[in-house]
Amino acid sequence: MTLNVLFAAQPKSWAEYEAPLRSAFAKAGIDAVLSTDIAPADVDYIVYAPNGPVTDFTPFTKLKAVLSLWAGVETMVHNPTLTAPLCRMVDHGLTESMVEWVTGHVLRYHLDMDRFVAGQDGVWRAGTAAPLARDRKVCVLGLGVLGAGCAQALARLNFDVHGWARGPKTVDGVTCHHGEDGLKDALRDADMVALLLPDTAATENVLNAERMALMRRGGFVVNPGRGPLIDDAALIAALDGGQLAHATLDVFRVEPLPEDHPFWAHPKVTVTPHIAAETKATTASEVIAENIVLGEAGQPFVHVVDRAAGY
Amino acid sequence: MTLNVLFAAQPKSWAEYEAPLRSAFAKAGIDAVLSTDIAPADVDYIVYAPNGPVTDFTPFTKLKAVLSLWAGVETMVHNPTLTAPLCRMVDHGLTESMVEWVTGHVLRYHLDMDRFVAGQDGVWRAGTAAPLARDRKVCVLGLGVLGAGCAQALARLNFDVHGWARGPKTVDGVTCHHGEDGLKDALRDADMVALLLPDTAATENVLNAERMALMRRGGFVVNPGRGPLIDDAALIAALDGGQLAHATLDVFRVEPLPEDHPFWAHPKVTVTPHIAAETKATTASEVIAENIVLGEAGQPFVHVVDRAAGY
Repeated sequence: MTLNVLFAAQPKSWAEYEAPLRSAFAKAGIDAVLSTDIAPADVDYIVYAPNGPVTDFTPFTKLKAVLSLWAGVETMVHNPTLTAPLCRMVDHGLTESMVEWVTGHVLRYHLDMDRFVAGQDGVWRAGTAAPLARDRKVCVLGLGVLGAGCAQALARLNFDVHGWARGPKTVDGVTCHHGEDGLKDALRDADMVALLLPDTAATENVLNAERMALMRRGGFVVNPGRGPLIDDAALIAALDGGQLAHATLDVFRVEPLPEDHPFWAHPKVTVTPHIAAETKATTASEVIAENIVLGEAGQPFVHVVDRAAGY
Repeated sequence: MTLNVLFAAQPKSWAEYEAPLRSAFAKAGIDAVLSTDIAPADVDYIVYAPNGPVTDFTPFTKLKAVLSLWAGVETMVHNPTLTAPLCRMVDHGLTESMVEWVTGHVLRYHLDMDRFVAGQDGVWRAGTAAPLARDRKVCVLGLGVLGAGCAQALARLNFDVHGWARGPKTVDGVTCHHGEDGLKDALRDADMVALLLPDTAATENVLNAERMALMRRGGFVVNPGRGPLIDDAALIAALDGGQLAHATLDVFRVEPLPEDHPFWAHPKVTVTPHIAAETKATTASEVIAENIVLGEAGQPFVHVVDRAAGY
């Protein structure tokens, strides 16, 4: 039986994904019509982004699953018309790029790179070597696929890595905490914090003034997760007051970050344009094909969103 | 029997090392007089740096071994009066700091960090994410303890790591090359080269114009090894001509690097003041104690220098 797979995202995504999806479907033995234009009542699966043409799922009466192209599903999960299983994108290319970005920026802070890169003044400052990574506490908030990947990579470089998640987790080489008290233990005396939590009502402003105050004075924040995880005003106050030394932010409440936003001009903030982790069309298409194969075999989908948790 | 251990390095090293050495000796059960002043004929072991008071080893008639505080032994190995076994310092603190520094600077280049750090101009440049590390070829020249450690750490981050050493080697996750043809294979189309070879007659100017030309155009060089490994004039020419995009240099033919040296002012060079890897007194003292214990038990020393090879 030929399946009907609707591609519902922006036209530029279609240009990027059409060939990789066709190729992944062929490789997985999926017999499907893949198109941006299929009568809703005939659609089996939707390959989906929330900035595309579909917001009302009501007409999709035989829909088996919505396969998100995005890792963050906060704009989909509360759509009351979406009752079919919703699968997040968990792309190994995305995970790899996130691990590379987080590890790179943590090492940048650890090695005090900016000072050396900018300070080429002819003065040989001997004795300015960094301490060992084993003497730096790094706190990773969020231990999903992305957070756990980052925490593990940092632990392999000997950082003293503490991870936190809502519920108990185990990650090789990482001291894992959970719950409200666990959050304090994870943050206490941390030299660096990396935010890799999903964006939910429970995680909004998770890094607020009180929690920044738990960190070691002069600490660093890296946010490649979601903009609302940080209380922006508290962050600027902590940077200005010296509790934090620097922050690198890749995600924001409003993107693109407006040109007149204080983060751009702040001397202790590096803004990057949501580049830490990008879904790669080739590997993402393989993940989508894998889920269709599972669904057609009557097996559970992978990376299904828990609507109550919001991710 | 009480051993006589002479500490022959600079006075500031004595201040740094006396307590950690006494503590490491006590922990290892070594009964020793440790001093900067012992009659040469009575000395069993010398804890040694070449910038200290001893250059003529002839009077040390019962010397069992010279235990170097330095990883690089090029200034000791050709001393004709030194006939006792010479042991290099292989300190795990030193290895860790080297791995952290090399991994950090390779990721800095991989993620094009300098551009983002310096370019906070309010312009949101979407679509500037880095490729995946798996699509970057990194060449590590030298696969001793330091080079192999760096190569392995980079391979764990999914870089396509090619290593080169004089003779055949095996390092987990790393494509290893050796010999003259192997050097070309290791360098060909490399996006980045990290230099971790010892300083010997055979390695001088190992990275010359011809070999830089083998790399991918717009490549990067990281040198935390030894200054003479690079042909400095060829490096500047390759940077000016665009064959290389940038270099980060931690070691130089003359240190401190003179204030008027062209590297300081070159827009495509970052100079760091020999900070990539520092021997840590605590861990280094444990290594020295370990070798004395081995020697007294009649067992072979570890990290003995091969005088013919020069390291």
